[in-house]
Amino acid sequence: MVHPKFNQGEPLSPWREKLNEVIFGAETQLGKAFDVVLIVSILLSVLAIMLDSVSSIRLDYGKWLWRIEWFFTIMFTVEYIARLVCVRKPLLYVKSFYGLVDLLSVIPTYLTLFISGAKYMLVIRILRVLRLFRILKLAEYVGEANVLIRALTNSRHKIFVFLYTVLTLVVVFGSLLYVVEGEENGFTSIPKSVYWAIVTLTTVGYGDIAPSTPLGQFIAAAIMIMGYGIIAVPTGIYSAELVRAYTGKENNEACPTCGQSGHDYDADYCKYCGHVLEIEEESATS
Amino acid sequence: MVHPKFNQGEPLSPWREKLNEVIFGAETQLGKAFDVVLIVSILLSVLAIMLDSVSSIRLDYGKWLWRIEWFFTIMFTVEYIARLVCVRKPLLYVKSFYGLVDLLSVIPTYLTLFISGAKYMLVIRILRVLRLFRILKLAEYVGEANVLIRALTNSRHKIFVFLYTVLTLVVVFGSLLYVVEGEENGFTSIPKSVYWAIVTLTTVGYGDIAPSTPLGQFIAAAIMIMGYGIIAVPTGIYSAELVRAYTGKENNEACPTCGQSGHDYDADYCKYCGHVLEIEEESATS
Amino acid sequence: MVHPKFNQGEPLSPWREKLNEVIFGAETQLGKAFDVVLIVSILLSVLAIMLDSVSSIRLDYGKWLWRIEWFFTIMFTVEYIARLVCVRKPLLYVKSFYGLVDLLSVIPTYLTLFISGAKYMLVIRILRVLRLFRILKLAEYVGEANVLIRALTNSRHKIFVFLYTVLTLVVVFGSLLYVVEGEENGFTSIPKSVYWAIVTLTTVGYGDIAPSTPLGQFIAAAIMIMGYGIIAVPTGIYSAELVRAYTGKENNEACPTCGQSGHDYDADYCKYCGHVLEIEEESATS
Amino acid sequence: MVHPKFNQGEPLSPWREKLNEVIFGAETQLGKAFDVVLIVSILLSVLAIMLDSVSSIRLDYGKWLWRIEWFFTIMFTVEYIARLVCVRKPLLYVKSFYGLVDLLSVIPTYLTLFISGAKYMLVIRILRVLRLFRILKLAEYVGEANVLIRALTNSRHKIFVFLYTVLTLVVVFGSLLYVVEGEENGFTSIPKSVYWAIVTLTTVGYGDIAPSTPLGQFIAAAIMIMGYGIIAVPTGIYSAELVRAYTGKENNEACPTCGQSGHDYDADYCKYCGHVLEIEEESATS
Repeated sequence: MVHPKFNQGEPLSPWREKLNEVIFGAETQLGKAFDVVLIVSILLSVLAIMLDSVSSIRLDYGKWLWRIEWFFTIMFTVEYIARLVCVRKPLLYVKSFYGLVDLLSVIPTYLTLFISGAKYMLVIRILRVLRLFRILKLAEYVGEANVLIRALTNSRHKIFVFLYTVLTLVVVFGSLLYVVEGEENGFTSIPKSVYWAIVTLTTVGYGDIAPSTPLGQFIAAAIMIMGYGIIAVPTGIYSAELVRAYTGKENNEACPTCGQSGHDYDADYCKYCGHVLEIEEESATS
Repeated sequence: MVHPKFNQGEPLSPWREKLNEVIFGAETQLGKAFDVVLIVSILLSVLAIMLDSVSSIRLDYGKWLWRIEWFFTIMFTVEYIARLVCVRKPLLYVKSFYGLVDLLSVIPTYLTLFISGAKYMLVIRILRVLRLFRILKLAEYVGEANVLIRALTNSRHKIFVFLYTVLTLVVVFGSLLYVVEGEENGFTSIPKSVYWAIVTLTTVGYGDIAPSTPLGQFIAAAIMIMGYGIIAVPTGIYSAELVRAYTGKENNEACPTCGQSGHDYDADYCKYCGHVLEIEEESATS
Repeated sequence: MVHPKFNQGEPLSPWREKLNEVIFGAETQLGKAFDVVLIVSILLSVLAIMLDSVSSIRLDYGKWLWRIEWFFTIMFTVEYIARLVCVRKPLLYVKSFYGLVDLLSVIPTYLTLFISGAKYMLVIRILRVLRLFRILKLAEYVGEANVLIRALTNSRHKIFVFLYTVLTLVVVFGSLLYVVEGEENGFTSIPKSVYWAIVTLTTVGYGDIAPSTPLGQFIAAAIMIMGYGIIAVPTGIYSAELVRAYTGKENNEACPTCGQSGHDYDADYCKYCGHVLEIEEESATS
Repeated sequence: MVHPKFNQGEPLSPWREKLNEVIFGAETQLGKAFDVVLIVSILLSVLAIMLDSVSSIRLDYGKWLWRIEWFFTIMFTVEYIARLVCVRKPLLYVKSFYGLVDLLSVIPTYLTLFISGAKYMLVIRILRVLRLFRILKLAEYVGEANVLIRALTNSRHKIFVFLYTVLTLVVVFGSLLYVVEGEENGFTSIPKSVYWAIVTLTTVGYGDIAPSTPLGQFIAAAIMIMGYGIIAVPTGIYSAELVRAYTGKENNEACPTCGQSGHDYDADYCKYCGHVLEIEEESATS
């Protein structure tokens, strides 16, 4: 596992090194157990927050949910302090994405002691669900997640071009329906009509706003068929990117011996002539 | 066909062997005929259960449906006993998935003689629809189903990472809409708002709950476009996996020299150690 | 173009041969023009039928639509007779799919002279829209359509397994919701609940029936996410099949000289050693 | 960058050449900055138009929005004139797609001085959103967009065959539901029923029209499952096309001996005539 920036540097004292391994790593037995406990705790505390928002449940079990919330808040606070103690560059950690999420998942509970407005606090607290992504550190998932993210990163320009086109289409078609259908049919403004066009193009189709004039329905049908076909574009982009990643055809370097390319990304030897692909491993050839 | 665990072992007496071949196998003419009759019986009995739940039909034909149900129940009971008789390890069969489904598809009808609560029995009885998967044993489908299942199994980690991300997104966005829209617009609790976010992200879009404030609609539009794009991820994963299966990227034979696998279908030399992969072409190496 | 069965056999008299070429073929200038005129006529007559079903239009222009309908009916009748005259085996043509569609597209109009029940006739008449598929005979489309159809045919077993699984899932989940939600929430019978499950799993989501209990919504959310992921399966099957068709990796025959396979479907020479792949073209090698 | 037709020809006077480079090009620092400023201006002016259509905002800020609109209109007019001045063939530019869009984005504002009917003008003005596609000229996107567009262009025949089939299906199924459900259930005419069929097949599912008879719901369920499966077709087409583009199946170099192209990226010998494809490996031929 590549250590994040805030965890690189000179060795720590033995007990801090050990703590670091458990909290930030997932290679040791203990480190993995820590991650599993953490994930279960996050899931339980998020469940408690969700149940707390159901008024009938809050009436009956509010007190218990309040205790659970404080139990997890204190637990996460201790964990946050432990992270600060055993990390090499605490300030970098605090300013990192996970550092902020870790802080945001404990602060709101303390704030409710001083400030009212529980509802907004509720939502900030629920952001601790983002801590769940720590699971991707586990050995089973780290490779898989990396492939998915790399494929997304590689196709980000194409996806941007796609979104750009989609947004332009919904602005044009939304405005068109605004004129055709008019305010009496629910298309009260261009932003609302664009919202309708997005609901339609993405095939969500709530039905809260729907065209009722023949011309409006005709244009809507055109948008639907367009949306039905356009979904092929991001899917095609992503599929092709993953196929490329799987078939490893990204390695464009030719074999220095026979000059052939098309080797896998993880190939050490030319699959056509059997010679080493990279000079560093020359000695490996017989 | 690979025999399931409960059917492996020493030979049975001739007539039990014969019965076993007919009931569990699909290679012989009789074994195939048995499967087809079974599948038609299951379909008919499930249809009868479904019609039985329509009150107007039950009023007029309830007696007939009751007779049909008993006819199939007795037939399936006889079949179940026959399976027990001819299988090598009856206990293992009883505890296997299909053994349980076979039992569950006859028990509820007998129970209705003693217990009321027909509605719940109805649903347990309908689980006999799962027996239909026995069709996948038939020669035409066993290969195809295996490819599909293997591709799913190979991509299970990636699909888990995907579902994980989707569930995190719906929790975050559902909570956001809960705060933005509030109880007066139908977003009465976080669980309900998360339900709405799932309905939206998956592009189902019932419309029973829909945002009505401009900010809520703006966030909803973002979720829709996200959901419209995100569907590319499982599709891409599965497509790439199947492409790999089709184009024979799964050449599972290991290199005779270094023992590593994962070679291309058209590779002559091990891409890890550079030795020839097949003995017949030894002379090609320098 | 491969001639259909009813058009194979001994040569016809010159003028019938000529007519045959124009009506059934698309290779000659006249044959292509005939197809284009036919397609435009079909489109216009279908449009007339559609407009005829709009009550306000029928009131105002009913007489004109009636005339147009008779104009096209007589035109299509003449065409049908011409087809009978110039085809080699008229009886085989009459019984072929297109022969039946051609007949069905003129019969209903004559029947309306004797029988009332115009509504049912309307729908039979509209089946003439199926004649539009004759366009696929045109040079630009025949190849493309063939690839699409072949890919569908190749994956028909896999698609059957997929549909089978989907139908089993909707029966199980539909029945579950029937018990959980009950008749008071619109889930009045198992068939209706299965209909709801299909509406949900396919992400259509009308919203005419929607779960309203928390447990029902929870199960519904599971179905949605399942449906959202399951769509990857047919898409993956079809994409992989087309990728295989495109990359032509279906040619499993090895090169007789160097023994390597993986050649394109349209390759005449081994791409690895340059020798001919098929014995018939041996003389082409230097 | 390939210059459009209206910008090819003899060199211009130095200052016009410079202006041309800034306005039409994106290679120089200044040219890129110009494009970015233009895109931001377009976005802001489109936002102003959208807000202007919200009646509550127009009441409060109408005057400001009117000033913003005139500011951008004059700015775009100056830009349009500058384009006319520095382009080599102004007339060709005026008649080009972007030339028309550029003109359409300023004309309506001037027309509002003489003509009323602001609503229609609003929609024409919003077409300036199409100018945003100029961003695709930027270096980061030009390549990506080209791949996407080329893949679409290559598969246009297949997509046409697909749309053709979809439209035929919705006409047939729409008419069927029109007869089955009838006017009392909202299926008041064939066009409306076809509209419903499109809403259903594309999985949009507004729910404004929904079948209520058992037979109607059965047919609707069939359409949904069909639509759920059919979406695999455009996605498969586009994915396969992109995979082909990615894996270098587009090696467009022709064989130096027989002149045919379409060779694999890793082919050494022409698969049509068996001669070596590249001169460097001549010695490899026997």
